[in-house]
Amino acid sequence: MAIKVHGSVFSPAVLRVFACLNEKDLESEYVEINMRAGEHKKESFLALNPFGQVPGFEDGDLKLFESRAINQYIAQAYAAKGNQQLTFVQDAKKMGPVYVWMEVEAQKFDPPSSKLVFELAIKPLLGMNTDDAAVAEHEGKLGEVLDVYEARLGQSKYLAGDCFTLADLNHLPAINYLMGTTARKVFDALPHVSAWCADILARPAWAKVLALQKQHPS
Amino acid sequence: MAIKVHGSVFSPAVLRVFACLNEKDLESEYVEINMRAGEHKKESFLALNPFGQVPGFEDGDLKLFESRAINQYIAQAYAAKGNQQLTFVQDAKKMGPVYVWMEVEAQKFDPPSSKLVFELAIKPLLGMNTDDAAVAEHEGKLGEVLDVYEARLGQSKYLAGDCFTLADLNHLPAINYLMGTTARKVFDALPHVSAWCADILARPAWAKVLALQKQHPS
Repeated sequence: MAIKVHGSVFSPAVLRVFACLNEKDLESEYVEINMRAGEHKKESFLALNPFGQVPGFEDGDLKLFESRAINQYIAQAYAAKGNQQLTFVQDAKKMGPVYVWMEVEAQKFDPPSSKLVFELAIKPLLGMNTDDAAVAEHEGKLGEVLDVYEARLGQSKYLAGDCFTLADLNHLPAINYLMGTTARKVFDALPHVSAWCADILARPAWAKVLALQKQHPS
Repeated sequence: MAIKVHGSVFSPAVLRVFACLNEKDLESEYVEINMRAGEHKKESFLALNPFGQVPGFEDGDLKLFESRAINQYIAQAYAAKGNQQLTFVQDAKKMGPVYVWMEVEAQKFDPPSSKLVFELAIKPLLGMNTDDAAVAEHEGKLGEVLDVYEARLGQSKYLAGDCFTLADLNHLPAINYLMGTTARKVFDALPHVSAWCADILARPAWAKVLALQKQHPS
């Protein structure tokens, strides 16, 4: 198979790439990397990502890493497949807000939300203790970011306009994890944000990601 | 003028956008925002960027923020102007590595380098004391990131391949600031990284950015 995703289905970054592949109706091979055994720090994986982080991605002889970069590549390379409004390769004016809200996800939403995912979802899985002070701090920071989202989502149904794009999609793994934790209250307090979360989590492409995760419970 | 950049020429993010505009031979209007007077937190600026950070960007009636997003928009909207190899709108396979190394800049290079810029370049300008322990910590982190760059730049002249792209360009403001500080040694220790820094800093488009900065010394 031409497309291979190397990683663990517990990694939000890996789930982000599968969400994009599913929106584009693309088949791929999942190559499981045993992170507890440190396989992501071994020579063979470092050839895919020199920073030793999942996912690693292959499309034929093209090797890529960084989930958001992989998703931009997929959306451009397979523009005519599956959901064709995920990005707008031919329309810079419509693409502008997609670029903006992809950056907001990466620069503003991701830092507090990924720390909350680690404290509230990953640490319990690994039998580690959650740091309550860190949780409170990052819930506060996430709340400030989501206040801006609330205003934005009062103006348009999705972050970059009237349709679901990569800017929304990139949020899915963290939102999905946090909805199962006490940090859910930060989202629930904001009606437009809550409606948006429910909408994007209900997409069939995301349901397929969760099904893949269930098939690999290790 | 159609394109307006609102901000301060001391902000690395603002300089990043001007570097891209200059590569694309685009004229723009610079609208100075007095950050010491808190103008970036006022209603009029928040309409451009709800997070209250520079730059704000206008191209006709399109309003954008986040410097890396603005640069992606500029490269796509003005693909046929100026440097036409800054990105590859028509070639996803060539664009893949550009996306990857743009993300590496944003996710790996920026966190330690922007903290070093603040400690070593901005704090002295504002009469604040540099935190030496923070400097040592972030120099260490930056060094680890640049070790990966050193290997990469031993394989190709620029980060995404044989030509200068947005992936290189986005690094310019932080590198330019750090070259005038003690953190320069982290770059100087790595021959391929040093040669790459000297090469990209010597671009005429970057010299024009520095000339603009000198015209606005406030």
